[in-house]
Amino acid sequence: MQTEDNLTAVLYGIRDLRLEQRPIPEPKDDEVLLKIDVVGICGSDTHFVQDGHLGPLAVDKPMGLGHEAAGTVWKVGKSVTTLKKGDRVGIEPGIGCGKCQYCRKGRGNLCIHRSIGKKAHSGECLTRYFVCSSDCCFKLPDHVTIEEGALLELLSVAIYVCKRGNVRFGSIVLIQGAGPVGLTTMLMCKAFGASQVIMTDPIQHRLDKAKEMGADFTVQVHPKNSAEDITKGILSTLGRYPTVTIDCVGIELTIAVAVKVTISGGVVVLVGLGGTPTVNIPIADIGLREIDIRGSCHYSNEYSAALEMVATGKVDVKPFITHRYKLEDTLKAFNTVITLEGNPIKVLIYPNSQ
Amino acid sequence: MQTEDNLTAVLYGIRDLRLEQRPIPEPKDDEVLLKIDVVGICGSDTHFVQDGHLGPLAVDKPMGLGHEAAGTVWKVGKSVTTLKKGDRVGIEPGIGCGKCQYCRKGRGNLCIHRSIGKKAHSGECLTRYFVCSSDCCFKLPDHVTIEEGALLELLSVAIYVCKRGNVRFGSIVLIQGAGPVGLTTMLMCKAFGASQVIMTDPIQHRLDKAKEMGADFTVQVHPKNSAEDITKGILSTLGRYPTVTIDCVGIELTIAVAVKVTISGGVVVLVGLGGTPTVNIPIADIGLREIDIRGSCHYSNEYSAALEMVATGKVDVKPFITHRYKLEDTLKAFNTVITLEGNPIKVLIYPNSQ
Amino acid sequence: MQTEDNLTAVLYGIRDLRLEQRPIPEPKDDEVLLKIDVVGICGSDTHFVQDGHLGPLAVDKPMGLGHEAAGTVWKVGKSVTTLKKGDRVGIEPGIGCGKCQYCRKGRGNLCIHRSIGKKAHSGECLTRYFVCSSDCCFKLPDHVTIEEGALLELLSVAIYVCKRGNVRFGSIVLIQGAGPVGLTTMLMCKAFGASQVIMTDPIQHRLDKAKEMGADFTVQVHPKNSAEDITKGILSTLGRYPTVTIDCVGIELTIAVAVKVTISGGVVVLVGLGGTPTVNIPIADIGLREIDIRGSCHYSNEYSAALEMVATGKVDVKPFITHRYKLEDTLKAFNTVITLEGNPIKVLIYPNSQ
Amino acid sequence: MQTEDNLTAVLYGIRDLRLEQRPIPEPKDDEVLLKIDVVGICGSDTHFVQDGHLGPLAVDKPMGLGHEAAGTVWKVGKSVTTLKKGDRVGIEPGIGCGKCQYCRKGRGNLCIHRSIGKKAHSGECLTRYFVCSSDCCFKLPDHVTIEEGALLELLSVAIYVCKRGNVRFGSIVLIQGAGPVGLTTMLMCKAFGASQVIMTDPIQHRLDKAKEMGADFTVQVHPKNSAEDITKGILSTLGRYPTVTIDCVGIELTIAVAVKVTISGGVVVLVGLGGTPTVNIPIADIGLREIDIRGSCHYSNEYSAALEMVATGKVDVKPFITHRYKLEDTLKAFNTVITLEGNPIKVLIYPNSQ
Repeated sequence: MQTEDNLTAVLYGIRDLRLEQRPIPEPKDDEVLLKIDVVGICGSDTHFVQDGHLGPLAVDKPMGLGHEAAGTVWKVGKSVTTLKKGDRVGIEPGIGCGKCQYCRKGRGNLCIHRSIGKKAHSGECLTRYFVCSSDCCFKLPDHVTIEEGALLELLSVAIYVCKRGNVRFGSIVLIQGAGPVGLTTMLMCKAFGASQVIMTDPIQHRLDKAKEMGADFTVQVHPKNSAEDITKGILSTLGRYPTVTIDCVGIELTIAVAVKVTISGGVVVLVGLGGTPTVNIPIADIGLREIDIRGSCHYSNEYSAALEMVATGKVDVKPFITHRYKLEDTLKAFNTVITLEGNPIKVLIYPNSQ
Repeated sequence: MQTEDNLTAVLYGIRDLRLEQRPIPEPKDDEVLLKIDVVGICGSDTHFVQDGHLGPLAVDKPMGLGHEAAGTVWKVGKSVTTLKKGDRVGIEPGIGCGKCQYCRKGRGNLCIHRSIGKKAHSGECLTRYFVCSSDCCFKLPDHVTIEEGALLELLSVAIYVCKRGNVRFGSIVLIQGAGPVGLTTMLMCKAFGASQVIMTDPIQHRLDKAKEMGADFTVQVHPKNSAEDITKGILSTLGRYPTVTIDCVGIELTIAVAVKVTISGGVVVLVGLGGTPTVNIPIADIGLREIDIRGSCHYSNEYSAALEMVATGKVDVKPFITHRYKLEDTLKAFNTVITLEGNPIKVLIYPNSQ
Repeated sequence: MQTEDNLTAVLYGIRDLRLEQRPIPEPKDDEVLLKIDVVGICGSDTHFVQDGHLGPLAVDKPMGLGHEAAGTVWKVGKSVTTLKKGDRVGIEPGIGCGKCQYCRKGRGNLCIHRSIGKKAHSGECLTRYFVCSSDCCFKLPDHVTIEEGALLELLSVAIYVCKRGNVRFGSIVLIQGAGPVGLTTMLMCKAFGASQVIMTDPIQHRLDKAKEMGADFTVQVHPKNSAEDITKGILSTLGRYPTVTIDCVGIELTIAVAVKVTISGGVVVLVGLGGTPTVNIPIADIGLREIDIRGSCHYSNEYSAALEMVATGKVDVKPFITHRYKLEDTLKAFNTVITLEGNPIKVLIYPNSQ
Repeated sequence: MQTEDNLTAVLYGIRDLRLEQRPIPEPKDDEVLLKIDVVGICGSDTHFVQDGHLGPLAVDKPMGLGHEAAGTVWKVGKSVTTLKKGDRVGIEPGIGCGKCQYCRKGRGNLCIHRSIGKKAHSGECLTRYFVCSSDCCFKLPDHVTIEEGALLELLSVAIYVCKRGNVRFGSIVLIQGAGPVGLTTMLMCKAFGASQVIMTDPIQHRLDKAKEMGADFTVQVHPKNSAEDITKGILSTLGRYPTVTIDCVGIELTIAVAVKVTISGGVVVLVGLGGTPTVNIPIADIGLREIDIRGSCHYSNEYSAALEMVATGKVDVKPFITHRYKLEDTLKAFNTVITLEGNPIKVLIYPNSQ
């Protein structure tokens, strides 16, 4: 009987990903039990599977995976009034504590008590049944697909990046890196009113996808190019300086390009962090040309806006989806992301499909 | 006869500073001829005298010095209606072109045509008579001293730093470097509503001056301290994280401290640039804790505000002034700045005193 | 025995204020029981007592009064970890729900679910013992007096007004109305960096208090003056246009003055609402001179900042306090506020003094 | 010979519009002589023709008309380096003085010395040859049509309105009035990232045009409807509250609707001023629901952005153009605007066509 079946993906170490039965949890008063319909694979999931760690966070005990998720309400806790059985919802993986100065001022992503905030237990959605706070659930209108619901997480990241970069009407944006985050950010920049977007990446098929989805210009770059050469290539293609540069790569090379190529008084947003704890930065451009450097970490209260964008058709994320797998084929799904075979952009897993 | 005498300080090379007679210039239609009363020595002047260059700018031909100046109107061009003979004025060393997108949007310090903007011929005020655009002159009310007029430049730098750092009501500010820029910025932070200001410097007498002028806390640091130790010292003294860090030093050590010690979501402003073109920066703090890095270059339309601050008594810059020299003793004045003998803070030269 | 005594002020109708015994309440898990030390009388309390209503809100059943309060923790709910018996706290009268879009973005004062937010049961602090959510309690450092704790509410109002008006470094502020809100706002404007503050009021002794506490200028006005005459009086005293006008009166006359006297591109903040639901406004000044009109309702997350201001000595609210009464003399206290006998500014009641 | 012919439209009084020959002016050093290609008729022109005045400005001496203009450079002043004969340009009707605090801070539309700023002699473009400052000319790229050049003025108005209203990603906008300003503003709201735009107007064919050009919803209103009924109609159609309301009508009825229908914490922008100097406004909504009221007057440095929008195809203004006339038929053109015969939206005049 299905209700006894709660198959769950658990990571024990590098590429040691096992599917195990777990008990179906009971929702507390303010929680709901969800049947998970779709989970997107994020770069952070892949780092855990491939490397055994994500930066300083190591897989030191069996851990769940998957936080780009959408599902269907199966059971509601007794004080939940906003949801009912059968509602389809996108799941925000974690919300701040709601009480600290960060949360109260709308920067919950920096919440100092995040670990005790309301959580969707980030990284445990690759399972058939999942319990989380009702506050983390965003009900999808009928015309929004469940796959779009799962991609709200990615859209929230992109919205927040645009806010951090002050992308707006008339912005000229350079995005370095044309993976899922870069591509979604490109769509969002357009939705924020950016005038033109140029993207760079080493892989041509990603740039083709970028063009197809609306990027105005693309430039193929190679990790061995010098910052000067890449800068020249961008400027000659774009014909002017970007006012905002969004770096979804985060290595010394891309940061140097960002600082050099951005217009005086412009903004550089660091989204991806390439791995090294420190990076050599051309400091004089920051000081004399007033290039602002800003990080962008997760997002803060962007789920409603992400859903609005999808529901009103302002952005179309469907072209991102290139691969779909059953829960039983989770490892295969990760292999696709890791090997890039079949030119994946966004790979989805369906925990309850058969 | 005095009107024939236009003694002028001219720098020919490292420490080769000569006093020469120059013809008294004639003001054009929109210019005024000023008798220069006071000139402050700025760190940039000192770099030219001591090192023969300021970063990439070299003394490759005889050059004037001095841009922190105030004087008295001696003659007015025929289309000047805002000034008359005898008016005492503070001199803004340069104003943007007024036409480019930077100037039109209030960021004239980034003016792409700055070289053709309205200038007080930056760095040529160490002279008896000086001609400049009437737009560069800010008339001093009677109760504002001519020395305060000369210090408007420094105040404008500090105001702009505070704006860049979003210093405001309730800010907790760390200022690294207690020279004239650091001290003036401390006063301005208070005027902007900062709740507490802590300052660091290697030299104790500067920290004493800081305390005397209103800094809430000071910490003596040594260039050989580690960033970790300095960070600990600041935090234990302050008892919390600064929300804004203003770095008036600009070396790898101070930038590392700034990025590490500032509260998540806070701002680091780089005012001083220590000399190296690139600096190794702890990038993860920028990305994960959202520490913004911003440069601050000159100022933009801050002279009126600076004058307002002095005229209404909000800030008192007089305690900065430690030494006064005649034009004939210019080299002696520079020696005081360079050797730090007599514990100088701000050293002034009086081109028309006897 | 004192623990049996929970004398409470209850309003039954116009001037029908009775003192009754109520049971001492038990704190729930996340609540604390407070012994109330001090309660300030607010204008809204007075409206209920004097008029039987506050705008549309009528005294249609027996109601409590008093929301500017501070007290001492007497008992803590079992999940409260941030407070212990004996802590002295300022009490924020109400906090939003923490979940709606307003709360999540830092505008909890507009919370659409405010009625189900965490409350200090606004308007029921005139009692010996009082229960409220621990989130509403701000622990006072030892050197902050309990009276200052009670005035945090008023300071929060003033901080929020300054934020709404974008009061900052260099602002020239006109405040209409020199009652407790106007006077506190004047202090806050200074703390926010305002360059000069001018105040108007019909009552001279309030203007004297304003001058004594730091207002740069005052102008006595009469309700029968024309807007033109009042505008002229303000401009001739100030010598320039205010950049921000804060209207703590809210009648047609003061709003007309505000719109006319404020500099082009400036801001008018409406704090007080004089009673009429609509007001005739000079619309052309709004349209052609771009005078922004903004309301300011309560405050949002300002208690920490208010406490910081008091704790660091940036503002001194003690001179406001003119009268102190026991709970038993509550009606006498209200009479002082209503009759203005003895020139009251802020009148305090001590529910547990003898 | 054509160069002797400088036929010019001159208004002598109500509907007394005459075509007269004027000498072809000589450009000064920093000016250019333009052959005017296209001029749009603005509502302000029409008010002068129909009523003999625009608010307080009366036709008390013969006056020129037309400020939405584009032309071709015919002759350049000797210090002009940015333009050459044959360049096609959009003409910004007036630019501030560039020196006052408004101009220096990017709010040149409030310039206190606007009368001595650089002008295109606002309201004198209905002529064959016209002289103006080179700073007022924006060179059109080849693929931008001259008609689009003439409409840059209208686009600049709309851009500025969006900035004043903080229209951005996710905004829900109500625009009252579907004339040229309302329709252009609707296009701009979309370009600024607004999620949905709803428009109201009494005239159905304007609403049809609005729908055709991209408005999400329209509601026909009648001047005799009550504010409550119009508010209900808007809310039932939109299904939620607008976050920004832009009032392009400016009468008591539309302002009342704006204040009532906008979401708490939202913004109302007043663009059109219906004529009465004062308007009765529901003040309690401003105070308690924090509805900001902001005027929007002209624009400030928006021509570059307007040109960017047209050049990159972000907005398409061509569908606005409904009628075209020769200079000789100027009165006929105004009649079309006044009578609304033929359902005009934007009516253009071609001063040099035959």
